[in-house]
Amino acid sequence: MIRRLAVIGVGLLGGSVAKAARAQGAAREVVGIGRDLARLRAAVTDGALDHATTDLAEGLRDADFVVLGAPVRAIEDLLERMWPALPAEAVVTDVGSSKAAIVRKADALARRVPRTFVGSHPMAGSEKSGYDVARADLFSGALVVVTPSGATDTRAVKAVTGFWEHLGARVTTLDPEAHDAAVAAVSHLPHLVACALVDAVVRDAPGALPIAARGFKDTTRIAAGDPVMWQEIFLANREPLRVTIGAFRRALDTLEREIVAGDPAVVEASLRRIKQARERLA
Amino acid sequence: MIRRLAVIGVGLLGGSVAKAARAQGAAREVVGIGRDLARLRAAVTDGALDHATTDLAEGLRDADFVVLGAPVRAIEDLLERMWPALPAEAVVTDVGSSKAAIVRKADALARRVPRTFVGSHPMAGSEKSGYDVARADLFSGALVVVTPSGATDTRAVKAVTGFWEHLGARVTTLDPEAHDAAVAAVSHLPHLVACALVDAVVRDAPGALPIAARGFKDTTRIAAGDPVMWQEIFLANREPLRVTIGAFRRALDTLEREIVAGDPAVVEASLRRIKQARERLA
Repeated sequence: MIRRLAVIGVGLLGGSVAKAARAQGAAREVVGIGRDLARLRAAVTDGALDHATTDLAEGLRDADFVVLGAPVRAIEDLLERMWPALPAEAVVTDVGSSKAAIVRKADALARRVPRTFVGSHPMAGSEKSGYDVARADLFSGALVVVTPSGATDTRAVKAVTGFWEHLGARVTTLDPEAHDAAVAAVSHLPHLVACALVDAVVRDAPGALPIAARGFKDTTRIAAGDPVMWQEIFLANREPLRVTIGAFRRALDTLEREIVAGDPAVVEASLRRIKQARERLA
Repeated sequence: MIRRLAVIGVGLLGGSVAKAARAQGAAREVVGIGRDLARLRAAVTDGALDHATTDLAEGLRDADFVVLGAPVRAIEDLLERMWPALPAEAVVTDVGSSKAAIVRKADALARRVPRTFVGSHPMAGSEKSGYDVARADLFSGALVVVTPSGATDTRAVKAVTGFWEHLGARVTTLDPEAHDAAVAAVSHLPHLVACALVDAVVRDAPGALPIAARGFKDTTRIAAGDPVMWQEIFLANREPLRVTIGAFRRALDTLEREIVAGDPAVVEASLRRIKQARERLA
């Protein structure tokens, strides 16, 4: 059991970590660290946090488990700033949506001052953000990808895995680069494509919007995601994203070529293969 | 009230027309016409049809309202074959997902033998097909686009509009070409893009599929649609589809360029504009 859990950034994800840890009895004490004390107070009032502070060193004192709940672009900088204040025995993880740069940063810091970081990416979230939408059951049944590097201590991987499982999540392990390529393909690419779909119709066929049916709405629902958060995600993972946009473009070009060529058997065979792949996904 | 409603093709859409007409008392008598008498029998047994026949001329005799429930590729041919057997006073409509070619065909036939056709496209359906999934409430609250041409009789438009409204649908009117461009943008393009997304991941990043979360699943759900039906839809509407694929590609290229350039403010502004457009859609 964790004695003192420190959560840096108490928004949707960090706030849900605090609430879930409390609900599951995963930590004896939960400390919230943020930039705005007034906003942290809601989490103290409702009992998710025992203490709240805007002082990184104070919040980390005696912590044995630390979760960086900050947005992905802020995490590298926070690692740099928190590293000198980290207790030697603390295990640190994060919730950033891309991992290679963050893990590289932590590994570099650990070569100078040995502290323990293991990257995490909880595949949970919402179109909304902020502590108001944090939930104790956000991770219940959700998938968390834990991303050790070659330098990561095995016991620390176990501690982080155990933490997420305690909050109700399923955990899988990928190396940081494989993680970034995978989320580019199944998370960032669909989001970008949904945005491009909306934009194409708004720009070139606005008159079609009133007849948009369930198919269009399902396909573009994620385009209503938070612009700041998604800007950060796209920029943080832009290289893997470029690679997967290339793969998508090739797939679209091939389908278009088959449709223009007009052989029903060829088009049907492609659609059948794709349908079967989609159905395996459940 | 319709005396004798003839439904040609008693699958998901045609079968739902028969069931809804029966449930709403829209027709005194409902006749089903299909290629396979054994399959039509289910609709006679459960009371949706009064009679079933595989003989087009027999099924159309004394019909005053005819719904072509056949797949889009079959409709032009069926119009040609049914035209000589149509009672002079009958109003004919269809459920085809693209309209310009069908309406042109009917207008050409009507110039030789004056009969009345008005195109319809009920924006209702499912990933499934066949009479087994037909429902009396399929059109309840659904949008039906009715597509008169310059040659279409106003009273016939009113009759067809009234028919769909009687089955619970909302009706809007577009000319056939505007309809085809609109459905290419908000129905066929999203479907094709969902297929390309699945295909890109299956071909280039199959290891990512186990971590696919709700975003990917929502965005690609329609890729599990019936391959035969969608092949027919894509080929029937391929020219408007090409145009809208071009618009989509430009939108995707622009977003990619902005992400690669890496200015957070520019990317955020685009995502904000797109989010607002998507939210207007509800």
